Amino acid sequence: MELPTIDDVEEAARRIAPAIRRTPLLRADALDEAVGGRVFVKAECLQRFGAFKIRGAYNKIASLAPEVRARGVLAFSSGNHAIAVAAAARDFGVRAVIVMPADAPAVKRETTAALGGAVVLYDRITEDREAIGQRLADDGGLTIVRPFDDPFIIAGQGTIGLEIAEDMAREGAAIDSVLVNCSGGGLGSGIATALAARAPAARVTLVEPAGHDDFARSLAEGRRVQNAPGVRSICDALLSDAPGAIPFEIARARGLNAVAIEDGEALAAMAFAFRHLKIVLEPSGAAALGAALARRVDLRGSTSVLIASGGNVDTAMFQRALAA
Amino acid sequence: MELPTIDDVEEAARRIAPAIRRTPLLRADALDEAVGGRVFVKAECLQRFGAFKIRGAYNKIASLAPEVRARGVLAFSSGNHAIAVAAAARDFGVRAVIVMPADAPAVKRETTAALGGAVVLYDRITEDREAIGQRLADDGGLTIVRPFDDPFIIAGQGTIGLEIAEDMAREGAAIDSVLVNCSGGGLGSGIATALAARAPAARVTLVEPAGHDDFARSLAEGRRVQNAPGVRSICDALLSDAPGAIPFEIARARGLNAVAIEDGEALAAMAFAFRHLKIVLEPSGAAALGAALARRVDLRGSTSVLIASGGNVDTAMFQRALAA
Repeated sequence: MELPTIDDVEEAARRIAPAIRRTPLLRADALDEAVGGRVFVKAECLQRFGAFKIRGAYNKIASLAPEVRARGVLAFSSGNHAIAVAAAARDFGVRAVIVMPADAPAVKRETTAALGGAVVLYDRITEDREAIGQRLADDGGLTIVRPFDDPFIIAGQGTIGLEIAEDMAREGAAIDSVLVNCSGGGLGSGIATALAARAPAARVTLVEPAGHDDFARSLAEGRRVQNAPGVRSICDALLSDAPGAIPFEIARARGLNAVAIEDGEALAAMAFAFRHLKIVLEPSGAAALGAALARRVDLRGSTSVLIASGGNVDTAMFQRALAA
Repeated sequence: MELPTIDDVEEAARRIAPAIRRTPLLRADALDEAVGGRVFVKAECLQRFGAFKIRGAYNKIASLAPEVRARGVLAFSSGNHAIAVAAAARDFGVRAVIVMPADAPAVKRETTAALGGAVVLYDRITEDREAIGQRLADDGGLTIVRPFDDPFIIAGQGTIGLEIAEDMAREGAAIDSVLVNCSGGGLGSGIATALAARAPAARVTLVEPAGHDDFARSLAEGRRVQNAPGVRSICDALLSDAPGAIPFEIARARGLNAVAIEDGEALAAMAFAFRHLKIVLEPSGAAALGAALARRVDLRGSTSVLIASGGNVDTAMFQRALAA
């Protein structure tokens, strides 16, 4: 298996520059006090379309041969990857079919459709999204843009690591820890690839929802294991069945570790971000912050970066967080 | 009357650099589409303590003679200036007494107290905050840090204009319009001072709550006029009685104009910021965005910067915006 390199990440950074925004590292005095260390928040909720996913999706679609790209693309996703693929396809003027679970947040379904994506719904518990997606792709000559198990996707998400390394160097701050929200592992493995070259002392920890701790168990067992089926979490973007093959190899090679958080910790982190950081996070986007606030990782006395990966949250869920 | 100059603003920028954060210019595809132009949002809600006010307060307190500063400071404020003065006083290790209206948002009162500010409440309708503040200052040998009618405060807020001019130049974007939330005018007049030197083609428009359109009427009449007493608005930070004397002179000298928005437009802007910008704004902080979305100023086909001045909002008010 060929793993993406720092060169791939740098090439991705050049390729996606016109389509993305460089997101800021935020701080709050109250966050430093709560964690007992110096904390920076990489606010990818402020990225175009409210999540980091445009980086990988655009990098992938930009890398397709023009005649392949012209036939269109297909993605299966609970939301942010769907939005990103629809948006990147629109940038290139090509068709996008998006296979989404029926219980995806309304805001994500609506945004995908508003961007011109043709949304096909499926049942997360009873249906196989891969089979549905493959059939539609075969029928339409569409290229499947996978959410995480693709070197171009991983390299695209890895550009976040480049920005972190550059901005922290400018701050004169050596990074001890980076906490990354984790589903299939595209984001975490991309960031780890970049940081291994640019800030090798930084320790990368993946943060998963309880019951979806496939990375933690897979890393412990040395092979990819699945989550038990049917376990729900409000972290709708972090519910992959198992680690991606490429992300898992990167996680092993780079010595990543993983921790899990409860839904209530994600909600508390959303409320903290509302009150002290003044950013809007979705439950999945608040997982790393939740892990830091709940001290699932001991960040005391250290310098850490938390990835706030997305902010596409329905009003009702956000109100639930504020009321918690 | 001596008005602050670009040199004062640049000196302020050097003085406050260690105490503030450089805030980003945010964009959203949906915002450009809604306004019909290219729009940048200067997100001062991401500033330390959730609002721009730390810039002026820190600049003022840093400029005091050490023996004067050591006796402590006093501020009267509905909230964000209170928080800023308490925070800056804490940075310098001096006492801060804060005179706040009893109907100030709880989050602002609590944050002020948490920062060590000694909070004294008064009734906004029946009591005179200036008289209360003056008596307490005289008794305690405290220096009054005024919210807007002070050249050091204006120069501090003006550093936002320097950052905007620099960042927009880096984007290669000439600024046509800047919309600024306006109470006593410290923020708008400071930004206008900076932009007159650094981006002189930018037209600065002040945005006031309806019923508190003292700047609009004062500019029309050529003299400072008061608002009718007792008019309420959810824009709690924009309720000064009349333009500040120095801000008004700057506004006249620089040819500023002013528009007013309804409370419902501020709420709609808060909801838009939640959904598309992923930032938390308080009603007063959303006024400029509200004016742009409600087309109180025609920004079609132009490049504009909206100041999102603060995000210190109680949960109940934010939920009201989401439900609107």
